[in-house]
Amino acid sequence: MKGVIATTSGVDLWRLYPPVFGEHAPELTVLRPEDVADKSEVTFAFTFRPPDDLFEGMSNLKAIFSAGAGTDAIMACPSRPAHVPVFRVEDADQALQMAAFATFHVVWHHRDIGRYVAQQAHAEWSRAASGFSAEHRRVGVLGFGHMGRAIAKALVGLGYPVAGYARRAPEPAEPGVEHFHGDGLEAFLARTDILVNVLPLTGATQGMIDAALLSKLPQGAALVQIGRGGQVVEEDLLALLDAGHLSGASMDVFETEPLPREHPLWTHPRVLITPHVASIPEPRFVVQSIRERLSSL
Amino acid sequence: MKGVIATTSGVDLWRLYPPVFGEHAPELTVLRPEDVADKSEVTFAFTFRPPDDLFEGMSNLKAIFSAGAGTDAIMACPSRPAHVPVFRVEDADQALQMAAFATFHVVWHHRDIGRYVAQQAHAEWSRAASGFSAEHRRVGVLGFGHMGRAIAKALVGLGYPVAGYARRAPEPAEPGVEHFHGDGLEAFLARTDILVNVLPLTGATQGMIDAALLSKLPQGAALVQIGRGGQVVEEDLLALLDAGHLSGASMDVFETEPLPREHPLWTHPRVLITPHVASIPEPRFVVQSIRERLSSL
Repeated sequence: MKGVIATTSGVDLWRLYPPVFGEHAPELTVLRPEDVADKSEVTFAFTFRPPDDLFEGMSNLKAIFSAGAGTDAIMACPSRPAHVPVFRVEDADQALQMAAFATFHVVWHHRDIGRYVAQQAHAEWSRAASGFSAEHRRVGVLGFGHMGRAIAKALVGLGYPVAGYARRAPEPAEPGVEHFHGDGLEAFLARTDILVNVLPLTGATQGMIDAALLSKLPQGAALVQIGRGGQVVEEDLLALLDAGHLSGASMDVFETEPLPREHPLWTHPRVLITPHVASIPEPRFVVQSIRERLSSL
Repeated sequence: MKGVIATTSGVDLWRLYPPVFGEHAPELTVLRPEDVADKSEVTFAFTFRPPDDLFEGMSNLKAIFSAGAGTDAIMACPSRPAHVPVFRVEDADQALQMAAFATFHVVWHHRDIGRYVAQQAHAEWSRAASGFSAEHRRVGVLGFGHMGRAIAKALVGLGYPVAGYARRAPEPAEPGVEHFHGDGLEAFLARTDILVNVLPLTGATQGMIDAALLSKLPQGAALVQIGRGGQVVEEDLLALLDAGHLSGASMDVFETEPLPREHPLWTHPRVLITPHVASIPEPRFVVQSIRERLSSL
């Protein structure tokens, strides 16, 4: 089978993946779009942010694979044939990466590690004397797919009181997690001291995390944004941090990436910026899952 | 029953605890040592670093309770009556605090978050492109009591390859953990990319983490020191960081606390300093366990 590898931004797929296909799926030929003579021979595409015209002429396309957990840019591609299934990476390893990264940021906010990092710069030894138990920070996981579930599981294991919100009630319920869905969003936010966002990017979630939503969190709450850029209204977040309603934020994804040099998020003392590194799937697992999917089509 | 509360350093027990005893163990009277008229009426002591003469005249002492997980200062107290049992805090909540804190530092080193913190200071967006899976960092937990076990459990759940070392093989074995004991220390170190130390302080562990031990870790390994001050030979650690054998260290406990202002650990770019905050037991749980212990004596 012949496939194309193409993306316009993010991790350079062409640099990383061809050797992995060679090793783990030698029966699949992968090419750059410009090296394909006859586009009708292409049966699958592997991409993250496809060029607008990527799928033109691919009359025998059987599957489109995203190189990440999000498929928003693929869904929005004007040349995408509507009947071809789009698969996102959904491997257990990547969900565990998210869980570890989310746990890191929950502890960062709960235990105020940013304060210690700042103190270290001038050799200052001072510390909180209480509040160390996980019971003091109620975590809310916004979005409860396989990533939200992995995050919740890790935090429940560490003793944090965890709730999850999803549009529909997840099946099965996750042990130890208080589940909210549908119109339960306000109640979910009202009991959440650290909000971890892992929603997918859709029309409904674009700009969803705005002043109105963030104001429903209790005073002193923190935000961990590891969902998708464009979901958090960044000026609203900054305003609520400056007003003292929010105590801090971890931001991994942004409306514009790379985050522009002059953006005020960079210099906010209560914001920890990471450059879209919450999780990146292991090429080996991605290729293995593509191979399995293709053989079952 | 009448008890005394006294410590010479660490958390100010006298400020935190009397109201908690009042609420959760109202049948117990707690006093400062200087307020006790007749020391023979004292049946228990609650302390962390007792003054040398604390136990003098306490002829009816039945139990000594440490306010933390360590009992080293109590054991070394010259006035301690040898026949009186010493209990350390061993509550599940504190073990989970340690597990969360250890997980934070494992992710800090594995995902090189210190690099992103440094980059944020000059609005720099650049990142690693691979190595995100937990399978890339083998964690070794040195000391496998109830804290080591809680740490291992959390990290196994996140997909990290975890080994544990203890003098004796722990019972029961922890699922998913490769156990080493006795003369297996070298083999344990040789397979450990991130070493998390939670050993108790004893004659054998004092100064144990020295150049010889750290050199047995693979090139590029990191140290997370959340055991006890005095176990890591700090100049050896600095030398191995500067030589590039170690890639980083998280230091929460120190030979001298507070860490002196002029100490080179403060300014080392690959060292994250926290001021002895890995875990502090919740007073409520501590008092409840004291109450239970006393009623069973």
